[in-house]
Amino acid sequence: MGQVTIRRFEDGEIYARFEESVRGDDVFVIQPTCPPVNENLMELLVMVDALRRASAGRITAVIPYYGYARQDKKHAPREPITGRLVADLLQSAGVHRILALDLDADQIEGFFNIPVDHLRALPLFAAYLAEKALPPAVVVAPDDGAVKIAYRLAERLRLPLSVVFQRRLGPDAKQTVQVVGEVEGRIPILIDRILSTGGNIASALDALIGHGARPEAYVCATHAVLAGPVAKTLDRDDVQEFAFTNSIPIPPEMRTDRIRILSAAPLLARAMRNIHLNESVSTLFT
Amino acid sequence: MGQVTIRRFEDGEIYARFEESVRGDDVFVIQPTCPPVNENLMELLVMVDALRRASAGRITAVIPYYGYARQDKKHAPREPITGRLVADLLQSAGVHRILALDLDADQIEGFFNIPVDHLRALPLFAAYLAEKALPPAVVVAPDDGAVKIAYRLAERLRLPLSVVFQRRLGPDAKQTVQVVGEVEGRIPILIDRILSTGGNIASALDALIGHGARPEAYVCATHAVLAGPVAKTLDRDDVQEFAFTNSIPIPPEMRTDRIRILSAAPLLARAMRNIHLNESVSTLFT
Amino acid sequence: MGQVTIRRFEDGEIYARFEESVRGDDVFVIQPTCPPVNENLMELLVMVDALRRASAGRITAVIPYYGYARQDKKHAPREPITGRLVADLLQSAGVHRILALDLDADQIEGFFNIPVDHLRALPLFAAYLAEKALPPAVVVAPDDGAVKIAYRLAERLRLPLSVVFQRRLGPDAKQTVQVVGEVEGRIPILIDRILSTGGNIASALDALIGHGARPEAYVCATHAVLAGPVAKTLDRDDVQEFAFTNSIPIPPEMRTDRIRILSAAPLLARAMRNIHLNESVSTLFT
Amino acid sequence: MGQVTIRRFEDGEIYARFEESVRGDDVFVIQPTCPPVNENLMELLVMVDALRRASAGRITAVIPYYGYARQDKKHAPREPITGRLVADLLQSAGVHRILALDLDADQIEGFFNIPVDHLRALPLFAAYLAEKALPPAVVVAPDDGAVKIAYRLAERLRLPLSVVFQRRLGPDAKQTVQVVGEVEGRIPILIDRILSTGGNIASALDALIGHGARPEAYVCATHAVLAGPVAKTLDRDDVQEFAFTNSIPIPPEMRTDRIRILSAAPLLARAMRNIHLNESVSTLFT
Amino acid sequence: MGQVTIRRFEDGEIYARFEESVRGDDVFVIQPTCPPVNENLMELLVMVDALRRASAGRITAVIPYYGYARQDKKHAPREPITGRLVADLLQSAGVHRILALDLDADQIEGFFNIPVDHLRALPLFAAYLAEKALPPAVVVAPDDGAVKIAYRLAERLRLPLSVVFQRRLGPDAKQTVQVVGEVEGRIPILIDRILSTGGNIASALDALIGHGARPEAYVCATHAVLAGPVAKTLDRDDVQEFAFTNSIPIPPEMRTDRIRILSAAPLLARAMRNIHLNESVSTLFT
Amino acid sequence: MGQVTIRRFEDGEIYARFEESVRGDDVFVIQPTCPPVNENLMELLVMVDALRRASAGRITAVIPYYGYARQDKKHAPREPITGRLVADLLQSAGVHRILALDLDADQIEGFFNIPVDHLRALPLFAAYLAEKALPPAVVVAPDDGAVKIAYRLAERLRLPLSVVFQRRLGPDAKQTVQVVGEVEGRIPILIDRILSTGGNIASALDALIGHGARPEAYVCATHAVLAGPVAKTLDRDDVQEFAFTNSIPIPPEMRTDRIRILSAAPLLARAMRNIHLNESVSTLFT
Repeated sequence: MGQVTIRRFEDGEIYARFEESVRGDDVFVIQPTCPPVNENLMELLVMVDALRRASAGRITAVIPYYGYARQDKKHAPREPITGRLVADLLQSAGVHRILALDLDADQIEGFFNIPVDHLRALPLFAAYLAEKALPPAVVVAPDDGAVKIAYRLAERLRLPLSVVFQRRLGPDAKQTVQVVGEVEGRIPILIDRILSTGGNIASALDALIGHGARPEAYVCATHAVLAGPVAKTLDRDDVQEFAFTNSIPIPPEMRTDRIRILSAAPLLARAMRNIHLNESVSTLFT
Repeated sequence: MGQVTIRRFEDGEIYARFEESVRGDDVFVIQPTCPPVNENLMELLVMVDALRRASAGRITAVIPYYGYARQDKKHAPREPITGRLVADLLQSAGVHRILALDLDADQIEGFFNIPVDHLRALPLFAAYLAEKALPPAVVVAPDDGAVKIAYRLAERLRLPLSVVFQRRLGPDAKQTVQVVGEVEGRIPILIDRILSTGGNIASALDALIGHGARPEAYVCATHAVLAGPVAKTLDRDDVQEFAFTNSIPIPPEMRTDRIRILSAAPLLARAMRNIHLNESVSTLFT
Repeated sequence: MGQVTIRRFEDGEIYARFEESVRGDDVFVIQPTCPPVNENLMELLVMVDALRRASAGRITAVIPYYGYARQDKKHAPREPITGRLVADLLQSAGVHRILALDLDADQIEGFFNIPVDHLRALPLFAAYLAEKALPPAVVVAPDDGAVKIAYRLAERLRLPLSVVFQRRLGPDAKQTVQVVGEVEGRIPILIDRILSTGGNIASALDALIGHGARPEAYVCATHAVLAGPVAKTLDRDDVQEFAFTNSIPIPPEMRTDRIRILSAAPLLARAMRNIHLNESVSTLFT
Repeated sequence: MGQVTIRRFEDGEIYARFEESVRGDDVFVIQPTCPPVNENLMELLVMVDALRRASAGRITAVIPYYGYARQDKKHAPREPITGRLVADLLQSAGVHRILALDLDADQIEGFFNIPVDHLRALPLFAAYLAEKALPPAVVVAPDDGAVKIAYRLAERLRLPLSVVFQRRLGPDAKQTVQVVGEVEGRIPILIDRILSTGGNIASALDALIGHGARPEAYVCATHAVLAGPVAKTLDRDDVQEFAFTNSIPIPPEMRTDRIRILSAAPLLARAMRNIHLNESVSTLFT
Repeated sequence: MGQVTIRRFEDGEIYARFEESVRGDDVFVIQPTCPPVNENLMELLVMVDALRRASAGRITAVIPYYGYARQDKKHAPREPITGRLVADLLQSAGVHRILALDLDADQIEGFFNIPVDHLRALPLFAAYLAEKALPPAVVVAPDDGAVKIAYRLAERLRLPLSVVFQRRLGPDAKQTVQVVGEVEGRIPILIDRILSTGGNIASALDALIGHGARPEAYVCATHAVLAGPVAKTLDRDDVQEFAFTNSIPIPPEMRTDRIRILSAAPLLARAMRNIHLNESVSTLFT
Repeated sequence: MGQVTIRRFEDGEIYARFEESVRGDDVFVIQPTCPPVNENLMELLVMVDALRRASAGRITAVIPYYGYARQDKKHAPREPITGRLVADLLQSAGVHRILALDLDADQIEGFFNIPVDHLRALPLFAAYLAEKALPPAVVVAPDDGAVKIAYRLAERLRLPLSVVFQRRLGPDAKQTVQVVGEVEGRIPILIDRILSTGGNIASALDALIGHGARPEAYVCATHAVLAGPVAKTLDRDDVQEFAFTNSIPIPPEMRTDRIRILSAAPLLARAMRNIHLNESVSTLFT
């Protein structure tokens, strides 16, 4: 664990200085680019520049939460693809490799030409849920975008899968919330990569309970972005527990009794150890 | 329309030579990287190298079908991301901009740092279907990956949307084919970006008809890759017509009566004209 | 004047979209990277990425205040050179040229390999002071770092120059504040590139008045960073007016009667016009 | 010897996956880019991309036959220089160094900025011929382009040299085939880098025999490209043996009794070993 | 014709300043990198850097003589390929295109990725010789490296070709100087790209006269490097005239009566004009 | 200490060849780019190119004197920033890191993106002066540009500091030479980074002695550029000794009795050793 001094000048500019020699070292800079995303990103870039100029041997940016990951494509003309821009900025500053956790789109790996080790929080959630020895349960993708991660969890827990399909069926139709798969009498386990405003989770829960699921749900998400009106969802009585990793620090006022925080630190630590020793990282998440 | 001589040496190496001065010209090289994909890609790269050395002013690669687009992420460790590799090869050879049609993933735009004009074949399919003045119909996404494109078509035609959800619901379950949305008594219009082996289309059709859809379907796909056992699907009596663009030449033996080919050439031509004149391209597909 | 929509997502990420075609245009993005410096810098980078992907013909970043300019060298081992890092980030995002105003060190131009047009606010201050028709006055460099800019002003106004030399003369000595040049009975005109905490200005004023200068000073600085305890200096009765450019917006609570704001807008506008028309920019500040 | 899975998708796209961890390894990818040259080149590029993303420590492309080497310059305006293009593609994909065998032009090393170890097959041919204990023989360059390699062989075997000079002597003249040096009564040993269509070899043989050389020639060439009408030459009775390295696999139907294949594998293996151990490679071919 | 001030500081450092605006201009910097080659090369690089920073629109380096062109490959291990290095330096300084005259190896074009217009002095020599209305003559390549250029001249003048083949025929043999082709009674016209020490020319002349050629030779070479013991060759009575271009200034003490200087300026001027107007350059030398 | 052959071809081109394998080695190329600066710079670049192609493991350019360091900014429009250009040339040739001594501006470190170890000669001068056990002395900055280095020396020797302020005070004024700080009866120790023509030193000495300093000065400068009329200054009787490092070889005719040469070799050697062993370099100069 190296010593680094980071402070702000009076006008808000970031200053970083490493307090001991890093010459030739295999340095891991751990910095989630969570909100305040621009401050955290710039802090990371400044540290990397200092390391590069101080002759660090190899610089791995460990980014448990990768800000701007959702801006990975253009939805309209004349938009940026900021997820790619951030990849370029990191490489331009001198990062040699990336260690990330549950990137919002797998294509983001392709935004880099340096090696990306892409860890999955799935084993954490699987272990957490396995301990619960839950009565008949069902893994639920709250949205068709979450099908892949939900399927992997179902596979680990050997549970059935359900998908809540939330779309407007045609331009003149209202939002449909349709439950695919059998949920009646089962405890629903909802899983997604990010929990932001909680809107999709809330309507999925309503639909599941409407289809007879037990009002004792578990909701898992790797990244607790927790923005806007999410408090209302975190307060629902039909959820037993929300489980997040600590990829993003959760502000104290949000930390209710229902929230469980699963530490991703051991996983990241093992990955860093293996990267340092040139041992396989992929074995960590299979 | 410039003159270019392309030939193979006796050992299969590609040779290209432009027969008239291209100095300072705004050159468009039209080359789908469809099968034989490696030959076509290399031919494109060789032409671009010749143009660059011949002082072409600006080189736009017009790639109606972008091979390797589906390899846009890693599914397993130690795989390539060939969609990105191809982007790098094109930039390395000297391409200044890309004009593409219905890339398989929108994130591929982010694999480039040069401008990408990404056209949509949707207006072609919309016009083709509008002319048919179909009796009550429904737009169908044969798969949850096709929801976005199907929704856009439904919006244009002001028709309802249905999604055929094809997944295994849990590790111990069989493949579920579930129809979301109302299809009974309606003519199904299936749409996707690529039609390759046709497996998904076939099982979607079975499910739709099982749900009472009329056995007079239309199947639309931008890119007619038509690989492996697709002939069986192309032969189904419950499909009235298959509509493809000409982004990939369809071999004569595949061209049955049921196949309609919508030319993307006018769309590409207008886009090239607007690029050349610095007029907006996005207006072409809204 | 183009239309651009900039907003924040709920988690603080920046979104930018240009509302009209910029294809082939010669675009000038005006964005001082003043505090909050990281937010403003990232906003600039995101806009540039959007422009590049939207086929803008040429992108000039107009940066009236260049944040991190003071971090242009290492003072201690294992520090960053953030002024260079920012130059790299801008080039990496796709900027083609820079238009800047009074960079803190001229060497920053050398941090770029793209053309930098480096404007000087000096003519503004010269015109402002010439109008005053001041009685016997003297131009003062409040610090040996400001000698060059003060000399140029003196030359324009045909006034004598004085330098306040502020250093510790030896490791065991106290800070010396020595006035070089004749100031007695004259109105001192202090000039520097940045006014930040105001400490140097305050001790220079004390020394000047101690040497018989008239307590009716003028203080000119291009960039009103105005950080920390600056309010006390802005309140001094021995200063008639503080003159800043509008390179950094001054918060309303700081805007006292003594503050004059000279608009750099006409200067920047002429420079942009000349850049666009390929006319000489250097003629603007001679 | 690592495990790699390479297969084609149904549309001909290449897929590669390394089956064991390559993290930090010093990887050698052995791939001649012989016909089908574009397929083989792309396969190499795809493997390199997979290795780079899998954190291989160093990637050496071992290219016993470098396709497109003959396109190393422009013969006419608006041609590509594909030999350089291929060098750029390899570097763009992430190759760190090249190990090549008898490149057609030595300048190709200059097309790379990464280190190129350029091996020579000469010692193989020298050993092969030395064993024959040939009666009075002469080394022959079948063409003025082969003089350098023929001279080196003559030097090794301490034999005299002859050059068959094949050019048109003036625009109105027929092709001249002139034998320089003494060949009468001697066994001619012809050597070149590539044997492609065999035309030059055939006319050189005719001329040599016309000058009294013994009709018991040996023909050596590093790379057996063997294109077009070469079979006729391979069948000549006045050649005792053709010797090639195995840089290019020779199709079974071409493998006549007269053909000897000298394995370059031990040479390449020693070079790879020395590269891996940071021992001199140049000592291998002196 | 722009104004540029070039001078040396007292310690030999080069200083360059353009005296008028070059903003957006299409600038041609004419600088042969002839001896003193390092001074001339650095001067060119410094000028290009100044132009780039002064917003020149396009920078073409016009290099009538390209120093280090002969170091285009490695002859021994651990040598540089300085011809490539120079190409990289030029591109690194900001050159956009090259205009060169008779590069020593055509592969040097492949050392660049920017466009190279490669002019030939051949038409100058052809016109010069045509005017002479020579009695029966023969074009001679004084060396097998000069065959290609000699063939082209023969073609233009519709004269026969001869090659003087100068090699050692085997390790134990002396240098052979063999004349290929008919020279008896003819005036020999020797042509090569460079005349440096003149050794090859001298022995070729001896051999030609030994074979009955008339002792009234013409010797043509594009680049008059004229190094070491060349004076002795320039003094030979069996040469009527030596013809060089002015790609390299010839020192006055070398300018004997026998030397004719053909100006390449009109050729370069036409090429620059055509480059500027985006007209074909290849038509200039066909 | 490796063997390298460096020689000139007859036309002045540089040739370099390393005589033993450098494969994988950590190579230090020691080359001050002192006059003849362009020759020395090119020699360095050529050696680096050879090393890179010979698979050197890491290439450190050890540049005790960095030519063109003073051209680190533009003083007028359309000038180069040659200090940056040289940084780019070095990186382009393949240098991995720089070891420099007392660069004229610290910002030059920011011209590189590779690590720069920037040594200070200060400890050498401090040790040299400490040994003298001087009677009451004062450290003098002969110019306001030398304040920082003079302050550091004063701090080491625990002596007071004086600054000779040499500027014109206003456009109509003559050059003022003002002595800041107490010098009467003290031995002045003048220090600067470079001693070139000696003009500033001479006028500073005059002023110091005019203020009562003892005419037994010491003059220290890291780099003995010694250009133009410097001999006159080196001859002054009021200077006891001039101390320089051996960063630049001093021509014999300049080496008077008054000149002391302090070898920087041990300092550079320790730095190289620490770089090689990945030990801290910053500890060497604190």
